[in-house]
Amino acid sequence: MNYPSKLIENAVNEVSKLPGIGKKTALRLVLHLLKREEETTLALAESLTQLRTQIKYCRNCHNISDADVCAICANAMRDRSIICVVEDTRDVLAIENTSQYKGLYHVLGGIISPIEGVGPNDLHIDSLIRRIPDSDVKEVILALSPTMEGDTTAFYLTKKLKPFDLKISTIARGIPIGGELEYADEITLGRSIMTRVAYES
Amino acid sequence: MNYPSKLIENAVNEVSKLPGIGKKTALRLVLHLLKREEETTLALAESLTQLRTQIKYCRNCHNISDADVCAICANAMRDRSIICVVEDTRDVLAIENTSQYKGLYHVLGGIISPIEGVGPNDLHIDSLIRRIPDSDVKEVILALSPTMEGDTTAFYLTKKLKPFDLKISTIARGIPIGGELEYADEITLGRSIMTRVAYES
Repeated sequence: MNYPSKLIENAVNEVSKLPGIGKKTALRLVLHLLKREEETTLALAESLTQLRTQIKYCRNCHNISDADVCAICANAMRDRSIICVVEDTRDVLAIENTSQYKGLYHVLGGIISPIEGVGPNDLHIDSLIRRIPDSDVKEVILALSPTMEGDTTAFYLTKKLKPFDLKISTIARGIPIGGELEYADEITLGRSIMTRVAYES
Repeated sequence: MNYPSKLIENAVNEVSKLPGIGKKTALRLVLHLLKREEETTLALAESLTQLRTQIKYCRNCHNISDADVCAICANAMRDRSIICVVEDTRDVLAIENTSQYKGLYHVLGGIISPIEGVGPNDLHIDSLIRRIPDSDVKEVILALSPTMEGDTTAFYLTKKLKPFDLKISTIARGIPIGGELEYADEITLGRSIMTRVAYES
């Protein structure tokens, strides 16, 4: 397509790099921005720049954070005897939304996926293992999506956590098999945390 | 929803102001940007900022342009006896893609819509009328979407253009009534320009 301006072409190219946004949608979004006040676009651009340059990750649980230690890890009211292991920040948000869980988290930053070339060393697994000794942790919940990759990761983590005197559990399979954890409704997700099942060891 | 970081919350709020993007999609896009290299996000932010601060509009036809006069108006090969009136830049792009039209354009910047409070004075209608005298224009094509608002705008323009010795035509109604011009396929849109129908005056 011949865009009337290099600026438009540039913006469309950059916007269409986002997942699920093609050239036509990108053009619609870009022209929409041109119709709005200048501040709207500048605020959007500024928020993305700040996001990318200033974001921090909690040094304990690797969740996204404004400080060195995230609000959940720093909260004295949270139950320090239990760690919930999740794939990414969206899963933390989804579980927090259920209000059924008061423990800590550990964000892996992905799951083991040989097809996409993601191995155990690409994830925050070592730092999870290092959190266990000298801590009050009595239980680790593996809250991973019930997919092939999630099961592989859970299996790997179970083996790694076995040397410690821990209860290892997984959230109940109330979630449809093959589904994505973040899209589960709050009641199903909340219940699946309440009725978590201990791994046979 | 309680976001783990103010930066995330800010970015999600700004992104979800875009049309058709809700909070959940915005969060998905924002977390996607965090996973990519920093340059990807900075390039996106920069392209949007440049777009909004440096964009120009052609002083003749009001199309988006890199210069004071757009590439189409400046092109000596275009037929200066004919002006195609469209709602916005996307319509220019759609018509250019058909390769069936070699004349000039005039971008109204919207259509008359009493419901949305858009009247004739909010559009580039006066400048269209000013283009006609002292020019070679023999025909004006009204290429507006065949909706209530499009028809109202076409009717208004026909009245305004009547004093001039012009052929006034409209693109053939090969496009489904109620449809949006920009989504028509190229063959239908191209043919509807070829078989344009003169208004009875």
